[in-house]
Amino acid sequence: MSGLDLVCFDADDTLWHNLIHFDAAETEFGNMMGAYMPVAEAKQKIITTESRNVKLYGYGVKSFTLSMIEAAIDISGGAVDTATISKLIALGRTMLDHDMEILPHVEETLKALHGDYKLLLITKGDLHHQERKVLASGLAHYFEGVEIVADKRPAIYEKICKRYGGKVSRTLMAGNSIRSDVLPMIHAGGFGVYVPFEITWEHEHEDVPVSTQRFYEVKD
Amino acid sequence: MSGLDLVCFDADDTLWHNLIHFDAAETEFGNMMGAYMPVAEAKQKIITTESRNVKLYGYGVKSFTLSMIEAAIDISGGAVDTATISKLIALGRTMLDHDMEILPHVEETLKALHGDYKLLLITKGDLHHQERKVLASGLAHYFEGVEIVADKRPAIYEKICKRYGGKVSRTLMAGNSIRSDVLPMIHAGGFGVYVPFEITWEHEHEDVPVSTQRFYEVKD
Repeated sequence: MSGLDLVCFDADDTLWHNLIHFDAAETEFGNMMGAYMPVAEAKQKIITTESRNVKLYGYGVKSFTLSMIEAAIDISGGAVDTATISKLIALGRTMLDHDMEILPHVEETLKALHGDYKLLLITKGDLHHQERKVLASGLAHYFEGVEIVADKRPAIYEKICKRYGGKVSRTLMAGNSIRSDVLPMIHAGGFGVYVPFEITWEHEHEDVPVSTQRFYEVKD
Repeated sequence: MSGLDLVCFDADDTLWHNLIHFDAAETEFGNMMGAYMPVAEAKQKIITTESRNVKLYGYGVKSFTLSMIEAAIDISGGAVDTATISKLIALGRTMLDHDMEILPHVEETLKALHGDYKLLLITKGDLHHQERKVLASGLAHYFEGVEIVADKRPAIYEKICKRYGGKVSRTLMAGNSIRSDVLPMIHAGGFGVYVPFEITWEHEHEDVPVSTQRFYEVKD
């Protein structure tokens, strides 16, 4: 695709693994709650608690950890012991400090595009944790800019394009979320590329849209 | 002062109250731990726990809440009950959702400068919470841009100046922290204005510096 001003990438589960860590933590949480509730039900409980809290807490591991503690107290009717709560805090810390696992073909794709296009990384979530992940990934040098945003709305994409001297109509956003990465960029007037990932986050389910010339789907 | 490209303001305790909420929460935490430890000692414990966690957690209320829970378990030797932990979570939620109290003379200052200068708000901390506070403050319309950053280093100030088309040598940063607001801007080559606030945060103590033509102190 020629004539693009900016090529933007989502980060979590587009460039590197993220949801596997939440998924593993949900399972561990479910197991820890086994004395009070069936594992599958406890896993569902942490997901609904997190969803309910997202407006106040925002996204990220610290929010998730606070939701796990709240859900554990709730599930156990207050009977959970403090050793378990300490384990939940430790589980959160592990999630904040895990090694980065770059997804297949990411580095070669960035290397190939790097010379010809201005690349941006646009990710939402926790500012401090995302900055640490970008640094730890070793991929930062491929990007002209890194933008960590609280939400991915069309207006946010427009603002970022302007900031980096690009026209939104000549900008492409690639990511694993139709709702956050692809649709708002198409609504802003740009191109969206959907890079499916095996797990789709509970908050991100969306019917695949749109018959538009501006939507593409690739395998990885 | 004429010939400035950009006039930048810190937010927390420069434009609006923030530390009073942390201070009140530390006191409440101390009182809640009264059964296990003298109040003043418990207050000190939450401060040291927070400091130790800041590298992994970053700044903000969610980090503080997790540190309170950790410190409560530690102080009580694990004996704290879950009702108390729920109260700490609720205390954190209150801190995330309090009304904004704009500091004296802030609105008139912004109004006076607004027409003549390009104003920026530069704040560090939790992305989601800071965005909510900027919106809730009713001050957003005075600012050309709002930049929420993980840390305030000279390079960050330089990058922001460039982004808004200003020279750092013709940029002024006003804030209540010598260490975060004033010094790094002076080191970057700009002007720093220190706006003292009655409480100084434990992490922010710094000897007042610098004999430089680029440092100013104002009363409010």
